Amino acid sequence: MQQLTVNLDDRSYPIHIGSGLLGQVELLAPHIAGRQVCIVTDDTVAPLYLQRLCQTLADYAVVPVVLPTGEAFKNWSTLQQIFDALLAARHDRRTTLIALGGGVIGDMTGFAAACYQRGVDFIQIPTTLLSQVDSSVGGKTGINHPAGKNMIGAFYQPKAVLIDTDSLRTLPAREVSAGLAEIIKYGLIRDRQFLDWLEQHMPALRELEPALITEAIARSCAIKAEVVAADEREGGVRAILNLGHTFGHAIEAHQGYGNWLHGEAVGAGMAMALELSQRLGWLSEAEQQRGVTLIAAAGLPVTPPRGMLGEDFKRLMAVDKKVLDGQLRLVLLKQMGEAVVTADFDGQALHSMLAVAGR
Amino acid sequence: MQQLTVNLDDRSYPIHIGSGLLGQVELLAPHIAGRQVCIVTDDTVAPLYLQRLCQTLADYAVVPVVLPTGEAFKNWSTLQQIFDALLAARHDRRTTLIALGGGVIGDMTGFAAACYQRGVDFIQIPTTLLSQVDSSVGGKTGINHPAGKNMIGAFYQPKAVLIDTDSLRTLPAREVSAGLAEIIKYGLIRDRQFLDWLEQHMPALRELEPALITEAIARSCAIKAEVVAADEREGGVRAILNLGHTFGHAIEAHQGYGNWLHGEAVGAGMAMALELSQRLGWLSEAEQQRGVTLIAAAGLPVTPPRGMLGEDFKRLMAVDKKVLDGQLRLVLLKQMGEAVVTADFDGQALHSMLAVAGR
Repeated sequence: MQQLTVNLDDRSYPIHIGSGLLGQVELLAPHIAGRQVCIVTDDTVAPLYLQRLCQTLADYAVVPVVLPTGEAFKNWSTLQQIFDALLAARHDRRTTLIALGGGVIGDMTGFAAACYQRGVDFIQIPTTLLSQVDSSVGGKTGINHPAGKNMIGAFYQPKAVLIDTDSLRTLPAREVSAGLAEIIKYGLIRDRQFLDWLEQHMPALRELEPALITEAIARSCAIKAEVVAADEREGGVRAILNLGHTFGHAIEAHQGYGNWLHGEAVGAGMAMALELSQRLGWLSEAEQQRGVTLIAAAGLPVTPPRGMLGEDFKRLMAVDKKVLDGQLRLVLLKQMGEAVVTADFDGQALHSMLAVAGR
Repeated sequence: MQQLTVNLDDRSYPIHIGSGLLGQVELLAPHIAGRQVCIVTDDTVAPLYLQRLCQTLADYAVVPVVLPTGEAFKNWSTLQQIFDALLAARHDRRTTLIALGGGVIGDMTGFAAACYQRGVDFIQIPTTLLSQVDSSVGGKTGINHPAGKNMIGAFYQPKAVLIDTDSLRTLPAREVSAGLAEIIKYGLIRDRQFLDWLEQHMPALRELEPALITEAIARSCAIKAEVVAADEREGGVRAILNLGHTFGHAIEAHQGYGNWLHGEAVGAGMAMALELSQRLGWLSEAEQQRGVTLIAAAGLPVTPPRGMLGEDFKRLMAVDKKVLDGQLRLVLLKQMGEAVVTADFDGQALHSMLAVAGR
């Protein structure tokens, strides 16, 4: 088992990574203040892991909440089911919520914990590769609004993150690729050596070779923890974690949430960020190509959906949370392994790139 | 003009109290980071003060949102109107929300600010006496759930509070009394001298004599600021601010939100807390009577609604946020001017008191 810490003063918390963690009550117990626990999961994960976790927590008064699966349900009315269950079971301020599932479950459970009685404890048990390396760490929680993804939410840190790598065994290959998108992102924005390592091991990573995937998760979480500790509320550097996401969110919104996986949209979005960085003269064509090849090797798309045009991107990116006083900021690469967040780029280069999108 | 500060490290903020503040842009400008401002108000307050505030903010891009008036609308679907307006006008993370209205508007606007794009700035401009001395200070925000008041929310501090005492001129007498309930509360829980002062000036306070009402507001805000600074997230002492509120919330829930004003329910609830404190031997009958007389002198009810029985209280108080691991905690008076939060009281005394309620 590997252990990391996210350093945020009195809100610091551990990340445990390893095999069989779902059965280890001693990892959970120190983070549960009272007797009441509410496990939030979805109807895909529940049949696989809910019973096991309930057994681990047999000494607590556990209320399970099983939500419908998918990004399309990441909204207020689904969130309301968590509040309804907590109130029906009279859970008080010392209750602990546990998110058992992928990113949607983690984001919604975290936001429910942030809001229930103005804030209760929660623990993340991410079961997908994407959520293990991304959304379970860092405290971003929330739900979607018809006009934009994650528009309603909170920065709210969990008490602990438990990453049981055994849960990846049931993950479809397409979702493994989606998780690898975020893993590649960490190399691109912050760690050129990690990028070399990923190029070397990509086929084995797609096969979930245990030692390699544990190492990839730990390295990703360590980079994320470092960035989050430097800038919890995304006032500055944290925004580099969104490499490919401004384009990616536009793709998701255009296709309808849930049709492209988030990681797939980020894969194509990162390829666009690589291209724009090259058009701006920051990357060589060889570097751009190397990045795109790695994304493709992970089994991810490297171009926007057919039929999604430049004007679609412009319209959908205008509501991005990185827009400040009307100006679009993008995460781009100054070089491989070094990202910047900037509004100071040649708009014509963006325009030219988008002009040929979707054709 | 009087000025106080709520001391919360990097989240400290000023409270300005005085006449004509709604027209003073120099009090608002330092707390507005960008050009975008969203004023949230209701259809009672909008015709009275919205235009004036818009004129004061003529140099900003202002979006007004006018919500239906009342506690019955303090819910998610009303809150959604704020998000819809912010997204339609493409407000970004540097937008500033301004709450112009009573406690419902302040609570909802603050919660909207806490959640919009995971947190944007907001300013409180409370227009009722109740919200000026209570909800606008301290960062409690939220909405109601069908199963309980303020069950969904956040601790989220404003950047500033502007209390324009001129706005009290349009306040119905019944709402003046409701505000006086919270003012009396501060004397009961923390300041015996203030209690003497209130007894002396109650008739003039009900007439809103300018110097006296300004002093009463400033003293109330100072006590609240001191308690909040000591315990922002209500881990301990802050709960004393809820004197009369556990009974009061039960009364509101029983009558249907909006039928009894919050301050009226708190008035009756404080009378019940005085009675229970006397039954426990902590107050003399004379002290209890003195407290009840002061509450009545403010024009407030001092008994629960007719027909609301002991079992109604017990059922409705079981979901109170001060219940921990199933045990009811109450705010009671150890003596006049000194409140405690305790689960360590003779349950039989509570039972006997509730047995005769509503008859």
